[in-house]
Amino acid sequence: MAPVAASPTPVIASLPLAPPTGPPKDKAAARKRFEAVYATVRDDLLADFRKHNMPEEAIEYYRRSMDYNVPGGKLNRGLSVVDSVAILKGRDLNETEYFKAAVLGWAVEWLQAYFLVADDIMDASITRRSQPCWYRVDGVGLMAVNDALILEGAIFQMIRKHFRNDPFYVDLIDLMHEVSYQTEMGQLVDLITAPEDRVDLSKFNLSRHKTIVLYKTAVYSFYLPVALALLLCGFPVEKKNESDPDYYKLALDILLPLGEYFQIQDDYLDFAGTPEQIGKVGTDIMDNKCSWCINTALAHANPTQRAILDANYGRKDADAEAHVKQVFREVGVDALYAEYESKAYARINALIDAVPEVTSPCGEAVLRRAIFRVFLEKIYKRTK
Amino acid sequence: MAPVAASPTPVIASLPLAPPTGPPKDKAAARKRFEAVYATVRDDLLADFRKHNMPEEAIEYYRRSMDYNVPGGKLNRGLSVVDSVAILKGRDLNETEYFKAAVLGWAVEWLQAYFLVADDIMDASITRRSQPCWYRVDGVGLMAVNDALILEGAIFQMIRKHFRNDPFYVDLIDLMHEVSYQTEMGQLVDLITAPEDRVDLSKFNLSRHKTIVLYKTAVYSFYLPVALALLLCGFPVEKKNESDPDYYKLALDILLPLGEYFQIQDDYLDFAGTPEQIGKVGTDIMDNKCSWCINTALAHANPTQRAILDANYGRKDADAEAHVKQVFREVGVDALYAEYESKAYARINALIDAVPEVTSPCGEAVLRRAIFRVFLEKIYKRTK
Repeated sequence: MAPVAASPTPVIASLPLAPPTGPPKDKAAARKRFEAVYATVRDDLLADFRKHNMPEEAIEYYRRSMDYNVPGGKLNRGLSVVDSVAILKGRDLNETEYFKAAVLGWAVEWLQAYFLVADDIMDASITRRSQPCWYRVDGVGLMAVNDALILEGAIFQMIRKHFRNDPFYVDLIDLMHEVSYQTEMGQLVDLITAPEDRVDLSKFNLSRHKTIVLYKTAVYSFYLPVALALLLCGFPVEKKNESDPDYYKLALDILLPLGEYFQIQDDYLDFAGTPEQIGKVGTDIMDNKCSWCINTALAHANPTQRAILDANYGRKDADAEAHVKQVFREVGVDALYAEYESKAYARINALIDAVPEVTSPCGEAVLRRAIFRVFLEKIYKRTK
Repeated sequence: MAPVAASPTPVIASLPLAPPTGPPKDKAAARKRFEAVYATVRDDLLADFRKHNMPEEAIEYYRRSMDYNVPGGKLNRGLSVVDSVAILKGRDLNETEYFKAAVLGWAVEWLQAYFLVADDIMDASITRRSQPCWYRVDGVGLMAVNDALILEGAIFQMIRKHFRNDPFYVDLIDLMHEVSYQTEMGQLVDLITAPEDRVDLSKFNLSRHKTIVLYKTAVYSFYLPVALALLLCGFPVEKKNESDPDYYKLALDILLPLGEYFQIQDDYLDFAGTPEQIGKVGTDIMDNKCSWCINTALAHANPTQRAILDANYGRKDADAEAHVKQVFREVGVDALYAEYESKAYARINALIDAVPEVTSPCGEAVLRRAIFRVFLEKIYKRTK
């Protein structure tokens, strides 16, 4: 649009009107406000341990386990619960609303911590979020298994404390169980497909990759935060009228492809991103990961290239890794990714455009396309 | 009773009348009927995996994990749910009632399997139920961590499938969460008190032992089966009238001491039972277990005996173990146990005698002392 002549119209008028609103502009402030709720939830959990007369040593250990594992990530999943609730309500949240949305946001972060602590043990990982994995910390070791279980149990403690009397309490609990279970299914398939210590590329293919990605990552990282926001805003799980949309299925049908796109991008960046871009050195090839890149390469490799992949994938050896990367380039993984990305972007955009912007039965929120759009725009063409 | 002369009275009349009934007389048949429900629950879980299009390999692995870990124990916990429901109702259960009670019984067995799979990893245990621990099975390894998580997740799948529409569904879910969480608390205290690889008897004392036993064992093994039976029989968690007893607190106040007695007996038999009696060789001393025997010995040892315990406890060495056993005998662990047992038996009996045998608000069941008495009589003076 061509610039227009200066006018006396106040600047404020040129800003987009509140709903649909995006995530808060001041990211640091938003994070800080969210982190304050972490401290409250953690202290409640510790107070509960104390109420049970747990020894001081156990309470201190529990505090350390939470502080080490829960709050140190990017908090994207947790913050997106809060952001989604604000978008659905089309306004800023009051203190009570913010607090409840943030508790559910932290429930997702606790779930993530629980998965990461457990996965790192199973994958024999070394570092996580630039520090040693929890099970490698002095005095922890395989106690980390129980710590993971406690992190999971804590989710239902915080939910009961703050939502026991809400009409959606049962649906909330069922949702958390269903999402955890599906994530564990995805982890099982990942583990039997790509064991850390036994390379067998005949088990890999793009369909298997899709199953792993949808179940292990997309459900809890993308669908869960939005589903929690929908519950909190009074969107019912069961239809009140036959003509009502199935809000949760609508969300799932967009957020699963979105999560798949995110993970494929993650896989691609692990191969193609520079350490400056992605903040780490990619290790998927050496770690025998069932990544989109190897599955795409397998689908396009000729017998010679296939032999090189079989001989070199999953080996902790820089030369072997270089051979694999060479095949990735030869079969055109870069171009195939660019093609995938533009198609995925268009497809997800079309799904978002088709969402009916209906008001919730309680009249307090509107199912807005923006909740999906903000996810997509955060991801599209990211390089880190 | 002296044998009486043959009479025309039918044999049936000499059997005790139904309420209060004990567990079924034909133990093998009871076990078989209960095991048939296992197969149904397991097949439902596998069908659900199939509905999610999980790869056949994952479904087969899951079946193997369940069959290996869930049904092979004594099934005391699971069967006691079914037995308790029959006692509370004062009659045999019809098919539907039996099935629902058995599903909850299996939920307890799944919970037990989940704890055992995880605990064996953390304790570096070798065998369980006369077979290698699951994590030591070929092709499993640390995938067992995720298998434990799936075993736990399955509990909420089976509960949702069969109880979603029952009025006590929320209380059932809350109960399972609370019990799991408390068991994990107990495991945490056990792990920091008696790490498998670092002996420090200064951390041991009888109060710490009690905390571990109540939280790690008594709650899920003794309170949970009865609490599930109470829920199933319509005993409300929240009082309807001020004058109603708190059924769950009544149960807890008896079953926690009962579970403590059971575990202390278990600890004592590990030291004093012969392999013929207990079906295994006791390893608590070599394994640095925070057992009642060592805690009792520490409370009574003179400085010389204490030095012997410090030097020899928790060492994988038969001579060291013999020195520890010698001190146990010197301080009189046997007599102290006999004294503990007779006092515990009397105390628990008095608690049971004080239970008011009230009818549930729905009128379908009576809170009978027999549900507690059958536990106590199974345990009292057992030698295996």
